[in-house]
Amino acid sequence: MECITIKDVARVCGVGVSTVSRAINNHPDINPETKEMIMQVIKENNYVPNNSARNLKRSDARAIAILIKGISNPFFNSMIKVFEEEIQKKKYSLVLQHVDAWQDETEVALELEKEKRLRGIIFLGGIASHSQEQLKKIPVPFVLSTVSLLGKEYKNDYSFVSVDDVKESCRMTEHLISQGHEKIALLCSYKEDVSIGALRLTGYKKALEAHNIPVDERWIRHMDPELDSYSMESGYRMTKALLEEGVDCTAIFAISDSLAIGAVRALIDAGKRVPEDISVAGFDGTEMAAYYNPSITTIRQPAETMAKETIKLLFDSIKKKTNVQQLIFEGELVPGESVKKLN
Amino acid sequence: MECITIKDVARVCGVGVSTVSRAINNHPDINPETKEMIMQVIKENNYVPNNSARNLKRSDARAIAILIKGISNPFFNSMIKVFEEEIQKKKYSLVLQHVDAWQDETEVALELEKEKRLRGIIFLGGIASHSQEQLKKIPVPFVLSTVSLLGKEYKNDYSFVSVDDVKESCRMTEHLISQGHEKIALLCSYKEDVSIGALRLTGYKKALEAHNIPVDERWIRHMDPELDSYSMESGYRMTKALLEEGVDCTAIFAISDSLAIGAVRALIDAGKRVPEDISVAGFDGTEMAAYYNPSITTIRQPAETMAKETIKLLFDSIKKKTNVQQLIFEGELVPGESVKKLN
Repeated sequence: MECITIKDVARVCGVGVSTVSRAINNHPDINPETKEMIMQVIKENNYVPNNSARNLKRSDARAIAILIKGISNPFFNSMIKVFEEEIQKKKYSLVLQHVDAWQDETEVALELEKEKRLRGIIFLGGIASHSQEQLKKIPVPFVLSTVSLLGKEYKNDYSFVSVDDVKESCRMTEHLISQGHEKIALLCSYKEDVSIGALRLTGYKKALEAHNIPVDERWIRHMDPELDSYSMESGYRMTKALLEEGVDCTAIFAISDSLAIGAVRALIDAGKRVPEDISVAGFDGTEMAAYYNPSITTIRQPAETMAKETIKLLFDSIKKKTNVQQLIFEGELVPGESVKKLN
Repeated sequence: MECITIKDVARVCGVGVSTVSRAINNHPDINPETKEMIMQVIKENNYVPNNSARNLKRSDARAIAILIKGISNPFFNSMIKVFEEEIQKKKYSLVLQHVDAWQDETEVALELEKEKRLRGIIFLGGIASHSQEQLKKIPVPFVLSTVSLLGKEYKNDYSFVSVDDVKESCRMTEHLISQGHEKIALLCSYKEDVSIGALRLTGYKKALEAHNIPVDERWIRHMDPELDSYSMESGYRMTKALLEEGVDCTAIFAISDSLAIGAVRALIDAGKRVPEDISVAGFDGTEMAAYYNPSITTIRQPAETMAKETIKLLFDSIKKKTNVQQLIFEGELVPGESVKKLN
């Protein structure tokens, strides 16, 4: 029997979740009648508080670690929420660890595993650059999430859940071409990046080549390693430099929504209108892209589904129900107001 | 002697941090000459890799926990980064734990402490509603960050670092009044909230009362507990309802920037211009507010300074250098393009 959640209890009682929490926690600041009603609903519906504290207690030795690269990427927030929920449902505890851009997450994983006797690991973001040798040392099941090892030599050895970054980047570039754009600048990651940034650069080049549009290296802009990666400021600075150098393009494709928003703001500050004077596209399908003005044309990654499949794959591996699997999801082009069709 | 960071090494060598990382980690994919140069700079400058993995190893028993309420609030991201850096500098390890809106974080803290033998705890967000009794049980030093217990009965018993939410909310409301607005709607948190949402509501009412503007309850909108708290969607829905009910206001004050952005988007979708037809103000001073179009008038909380002072206060308590301290920071009104002066 499925347990109902605290949100269900709140809905049934017509109160907020914080009120339900106060009832459960014997907080003095609650109307006694409301409390009684809530406790009645809880009893009738078999609600079990999925409190982290209680889970920690009973499942100390059953922990899953999530190693996150890129804390400022809002795209990960929605996934982490799903991970937390699903891991709590399975009565495991959760260890979150942020990994800096320059750290080797396999090393961090090996140490964490030793210290906390993990049952499984999720690598969120990053990792594409690491050697097989390192990955082979990890003694527990793990899944790479939003990281594809497509086209790498170790393709079939590890489980991952991702979109095909080359294909999706190609999809967006082709969309811009279909709207009449040929001079398309790319806001890309660090020059040395061998992870998703490199894959999205490949997709961009592939699309241009397929349409016989020569690649102009001045159009390809890399992040400044001094700035936070994938930050709005990064996108702003790259676009400002593009404008100052007089690079002549009709569209800018930024490989994340946050970079795209920085680009739009730089264009507005330079007196340009988006999309009337110049079109801008992003990648990820974040909430920000939908709420921005103009809304940003983007590639939506099915974040929640990918998060759920990541967890499922990990638990299947822990229970030895499955071998290595690679799940590639389709991205979806979400048209916004930021791209204009040229005549 | 202070150690230099990997960013310093990268700057000195004129390469990206990922290249320095590859040099340190013996990654094959690096030019041997570049690697030699990097290793030389590292040697000369006494750089010690501040790798989480290495820190975990040597400081297993010296952990600081950060309990975070409100993972989707981007305002916390910049603070978490400072916490990570400062805690690594002190050679402590870090445990991050997200706490759901309805969870009692003191309970989570007590369990964590037992399990991991923590040296200290930072509560980020939340908590204002908890009882002294619970707080008294926590056996290690802790600091409440971005949470003020001002005006509560336990005012002088606990260390906290925050702005004065009542005062800052009053400041923004007064600013709107100074721009000629009298009909000011408030996008607030849940009805039952007794934390910062309640304090900001108090500040809003206080400002109106000081200017003899009667408070119209229809202007005060609460978040839907079914939606993520402080999400853009929340702000969007509250504003849509406001418009549909024909509530007549010239300005909307949202108690977070994310809510303000949702509000602007709802207004645009309803065919209104911001600020020409209606003004919008936010709170927090996030990157998003600065990069939005129009940029959002907001209250900037000095996030980095507050994070640094939180850590300092915690380590001073751990080393028994200090007693309980309350640090209240001034917010700063950052004018954006989203508020218009009425004639």
